[in-house]
Amino acid sequence: MTVRVGILGATGAVGQRLIQLLEPHPDFEIAALTASDASAGEAYRDVAKWRVDTPIPDAVAEMTVGATEPDAVPNDVDLLFSSLPSSVGAAVEPDFCEAGYVVSSNSSNSRMAADVPLIIPEVNADHLDVLEVQRDDRGWDGALVKNPNCSTITFVPTLAALTEYGLERVHVATLQAVSGAGYDGVTSMEIIDNAIPHIGGEEDKLETESKRLLGTFDGAEITQHEMEVAASCNRIATLDGHLENVWVETDEDLSPEAAKAAMADYPALDLRSSPDPLIHVFDDLDRPQPRLDRTLGDGMAVSAGGHRESTFGLQYNCLSHNTIRGAAGASVLNGELLLENGYL
Amino acid sequence: MTVRVGILGATGAVGQRLIQLLEPHPDFEIAALTASDASAGEAYRDVAKWRVDTPIPDAVAEMTVGATEPDAVPNDVDLLFSSLPSSVGAAVEPDFCEAGYVVSSNSSNSRMAADVPLIIPEVNADHLDVLEVQRDDRGWDGALVKNPNCSTITFVPTLAALTEYGLERVHVATLQAVSGAGYDGVTSMEIIDNAIPHIGGEEDKLETESKRLLGTFDGAEITQHEMEVAASCNRIATLDGHLENVWVETDEDLSPEAAKAAMADYPALDLRSSPDPLIHVFDDLDRPQPRLDRTLGDGMAVSAGGHRESTFGLQYNCLSHNTIRGAAGASVLNGELLLENGYL
Amino acid sequence: MTVRVGILGATGAVGQRLIQLLEPHPDFEIAALTASDASAGEAYRDVAKWRVDTPIPDAVAEMTVGATEPDAVPNDVDLLFSSLPSSVGAAVEPDFCEAGYVVSSNSSNSRMAADVPLIIPEVNADHLDVLEVQRDDRGWDGALVKNPNCSTITFVPTLAALTEYGLERVHVATLQAVSGAGYDGVTSMEIIDNAIPHIGGEEDKLETESKRLLGTFDGAEITQHEMEVAASCNRIATLDGHLENVWVETDEDLSPEAAKAAMADYPALDLRSSPDPLIHVFDDLDRPQPRLDRTLGDGMAVSAGGHRESTFGLQYNCLSHNTIRGAAGASVLNGELLLENGYL
Amino acid sequence: MTVRVGILGATGAVGQRLIQLLEPHPDFEIAALTASDASAGEAYRDVAKWRVDTPIPDAVAEMTVGATEPDAVPNDVDLLFSSLPSSVGAAVEPDFCEAGYVVSSNSSNSRMAADVPLIIPEVNADHLDVLEVQRDDRGWDGALVKNPNCSTITFVPTLAALTEYGLERVHVATLQAVSGAGYDGVTSMEIIDNAIPHIGGEEDKLETESKRLLGTFDGAEITQHEMEVAASCNRIATLDGHLENVWVETDEDLSPEAAKAAMADYPALDLRSSPDPLIHVFDDLDRPQPRLDRTLGDGMAVSAGGHRESTFGLQYNCLSHNTIRGAAGASVLNGELLLENGYL
Repeated sequence: MTVRVGILGATGAVGQRLIQLLEPHPDFEIAALTASDASAGEAYRDVAKWRVDTPIPDAVAEMTVGATEPDAVPNDVDLLFSSLPSSVGAAVEPDFCEAGYVVSSNSSNSRMAADVPLIIPEVNADHLDVLEVQRDDRGWDGALVKNPNCSTITFVPTLAALTEYGLERVHVATLQAVSGAGYDGVTSMEIIDNAIPHIGGEEDKLETESKRLLGTFDGAEITQHEMEVAASCNRIATLDGHLENVWVETDEDLSPEAAKAAMADYPALDLRSSPDPLIHVFDDLDRPQPRLDRTLGDGMAVSAGGHRESTFGLQYNCLSHNTIRGAAGASVLNGELLLENGYL
Repeated sequence: MTVRVGILGATGAVGQRLIQLLEPHPDFEIAALTASDASAGEAYRDVAKWRVDTPIPDAVAEMTVGATEPDAVPNDVDLLFSSLPSSVGAAVEPDFCEAGYVVSSNSSNSRMAADVPLIIPEVNADHLDVLEVQRDDRGWDGALVKNPNCSTITFVPTLAALTEYGLERVHVATLQAVSGAGYDGVTSMEIIDNAIPHIGGEEDKLETESKRLLGTFDGAEITQHEMEVAASCNRIATLDGHLENVWVETDEDLSPEAAKAAMADYPALDLRSSPDPLIHVFDDLDRPQPRLDRTLGDGMAVSAGGHRESTFGLQYNCLSHNTIRGAAGASVLNGELLLENGYL
Repeated sequence: MTVRVGILGATGAVGQRLIQLLEPHPDFEIAALTASDASAGEAYRDVAKWRVDTPIPDAVAEMTVGATEPDAVPNDVDLLFSSLPSSVGAAVEPDFCEAGYVVSSNSSNSRMAADVPLIIPEVNADHLDVLEVQRDDRGWDGALVKNPNCSTITFVPTLAALTEYGLERVHVATLQAVSGAGYDGVTSMEIIDNAIPHIGGEEDKLETESKRLLGTFDGAEITQHEMEVAASCNRIATLDGHLENVWVETDEDLSPEAAKAAMADYPALDLRSSPDPLIHVFDDLDRPQPRLDRTLGDGMAVSAGGHRESTFGLQYNCLSHNTIRGAAGASVLNGELLLENGYL
Repeated sequence: MTVRVGILGATGAVGQRLIQLLEPHPDFEIAALTASDASAGEAYRDVAKWRVDTPIPDAVAEMTVGATEPDAVPNDVDLLFSSLPSSVGAAVEPDFCEAGYVVSSNSSNSRMAADVPLIIPEVNADHLDVLEVQRDDRGWDGALVKNPNCSTITFVPTLAALTEYGLERVHVATLQAVSGAGYDGVTSMEIIDNAIPHIGGEEDKLETESKRLLGTFDGAEITQHEMEVAASCNRIATLDGHLENVWVETDEDLSPEAAKAAMADYPALDLRSSPDPLIHVFDDLDRPQPRLDRTLGDGMAVSAGGHRESTFGLQYNCLSHNTIRGAAGASVLNGELLLENGYL
């Protein structure tokens, strides 16, 4: 028995990745695609500028794209993956939840709302049950689950592996790929032979989402982790894969060797899209590197390396594939968690 | 009256930049070029793979390259600029100093030696007089002066502007251009669609050289600044221009506005290659950018922008042209300082 | 006495280059800037995303941008440089000519019209007098002059140097820079680690404009050159500089040496922006290269190299800076020709 | 039953691709690795700088690398894949053949020798029997088979599909990836924001190898195809995938539609590494593109698109993965052909 799923915002870069991941997925079956009104009524092939590195699946290519509104999605669809622009997501995701759909969303709206689970399954699967609060509060038959921002997803699993040492202060500098801005987000003239030391709103996402993800849920509300986080974000000329430099100061002594062991031994999760190991640890000082390491674990692994003693605590680098682990794959994995936990 | 100068290691990337800067220089006249034994005796045109963005000057092109040893340099040359590989520099620079030559060197050897001035003229020109100690200790007629590493030169001027606030803790993450590794240092397969989170020995240079540069000289010895510095270095696919993300915690309160004012008002120096302003301050959050801003002040300015309040103190970004301000231009500027101070 | 000039479409990539070239120009004085209605009434600084590699001139930055219509341009402006999108150019350039303005346009509309001079001054300055026909036909007080497409401008001067050998068949393959598509024309995801073997409409421009430029004007009409031309156009990940591979078959025997001599000796023109030599000839097989050679002659020279005997006639490579020689500089040079010939 | 195979020159870029392709191959078992004397005696893991995008197979990583000489290869190895530098290949491949080994070589030495089969199995498998001549002439128990140069392999299959139309004149311009020069062949400073219109010896390979491949073998000798070919080769900033612009003039009329049909219908071959279809034909004018299309058919397909009527005959673009179809995969495919034809 497969779950019939739909994709809200199916023509964009993350939408295409969702199709690439969902089409061969044994538990999910693509049954609906939506896009902006301009594309509604057209065949997907004719409105999507397909750019991922596998051919567009034939069945999907011929599907008719619907408008992004509840009436345009068949009733027998149980789960919707949303990769809408955040302003659109803010406007329409509640309508779908009200209409009874469960939405696993990559859009940035509502990520920090008290009753919306913001989830990386390997890190805080227990936060999912804040959905009970959400349904009580909002009277929805459906549900809204969020995954974090792509740059947040990269470093939080490595911090999660170190929580027992008492996380206190974290500095993180990011070198982010252009795909994180969407297909048209960064022009070639902006980035060839260049780097841009600013991504609007990004630093705040790393700083706030990370504390929420590592926070605790007591059945009623989520208490944020008390560590302090400072982020500095840069765009560079890579296609995929966010690389991050991390300094972390802990309450307990934390040697590079202990940090590597804690990351390598971080428990895997028994969900189809969760890789084992979750964190691929390199001994090499010059790894991970975006092009060489972004596809580890089919793009769902996080990698880490260059662990060394810093002037201030521990220092290391980490990486994940921003449009798979950091976006489309994150939403799919949350979909698997929803299925596993009986929300579908 | 011009000073006759020579270039040790004239065929490499920094050697070419030295020629580009010295050829039109009103105070210096290129009178000697040296290279490895394999190139000695050949015309410069035939042994240098000329790659900077102005044509090779005709007079230089026809000069015969000498071996890198004191006997091969005419006696009437007073000042040598050295861009030798550090292992070669360590072996032969003392021979030149012993033979009476004043050497302004970009090579990394001996930069932290107690009696070798490590100088950014706008920051610590007063350290130059450690040459008196050097000549006493070593019995040289000549002298050896060093400029710092290219990545150090980028952020130290911005810190120098903030010293009155009491520098305590500094984190710096670098996004460095491929030219910093020399013409053949980074292959295209390593860096296209990629970034490398490691540059051998680089982090140590930022951490130690910065404290030395901001230290004090009492006429006998240099006392390092007591701030603590942690660096994380990355290579990215830019040709020229090192971009750096800085977090600085100070003893006194330091607002972004005060930091910008202190940088913009940092005093210029009356040396030919020193730009006014030294630090170009941007209001834009997304500046400086390597391609757009590396040639400010003919490549001798430092630029800074994105000043903001961080979770931990002040945060900003800075940039300089790594082969001009960070290497060849740094050595030329030290040559001007030596001339100004009567060491030639 | 300087000529007061205006720029139609001043905010785009070519508009910015026009400002960069015109601001220091001794014969021209920028007196009007126009843009789309959305920008009209604003200060130039506030509506242009300035991206060329010299700072925005202060005087220009503070100018108020006008709408792109004759009433919005002061009457004492004599010459307008147009870098409008071609659809806009087609709609409004005739209005300006009708209103008495002389327009030197880089826009592609009307380039092949029988009574519009399409000019590279060093190649076919004598075609300028087709303006007499234009004024007769159209009853304009003003005039409309065009420069060719950037990729056409690159190879036509090299062909012009070979006309005495009897040009018969020409194949040209282009490797074109992203700036040719405008600031936002090529996304980073399209071109990093990639090349695109198609540029809409470009091949036709090379094939038709080249025959027109090398044609003859008998005082009444222009007869196209009878050579045949086939073009294949590619976009690659360079910022500026179009590189072209050319094969040319001629009626007379043409050795590589003779071709090099003919190009090197091609006569320079006594106009301010015309470089001497016009064609920079390399002996090296691997030159010209975009990054190394695009700024020869302040970006107004064409360069050529790799001349060799081919299976079919002569083979060589050529290059020019597409936004200077190929666009903004081409229009400025045509402005100088108009001034020299008494049309202002 | 698997054939035990060895790799001569196993540490280079093509050697690594050979390991990547051979390790999962059902018919071949990697039993020997050789490299330069400096690496002999070391574990493969310690001497190879592994850079392909799948992890190094454990079994291979632990193998001891031997010297590149017949005595260092076990006798029960039947087939050797050679990716030696051509000067080394010229020196040692005959020794291996003399010692009884069958060598499938990617090295450029001896490709045009009259008694050495130069093979693309889908194009001229019948040339393989020139091995009978080779064995007679040279008295070898072993055999030497070559695949063509990577840039030749890209366009020859598309020409092979058109032979019935009477190929007469071919112009080809290439845009070649940096991996074609080996891991260290192109520095980053040479190619970022740049293109190089020259690859030493490359044009001659396209012009001569193509005529040989499309030639006929009468059981005694190979007669070259009488078409004329002119090539112009460029290096661009792509990692993998050679893109080529082709003009072809034929004796019979050849419409773009007929050319597309002939390519799409070109017969596939029943060898494991030969894809079906061999030639992937695009309707899109802007395809194939290196990054999007190089992995079609697991990197063994050729793709073609942009078919259009040219001033001179037919024009189109084609692409193949230069280190898979154009090098390592080509050698493996020739190995499969040797096995199929009883030469092992």
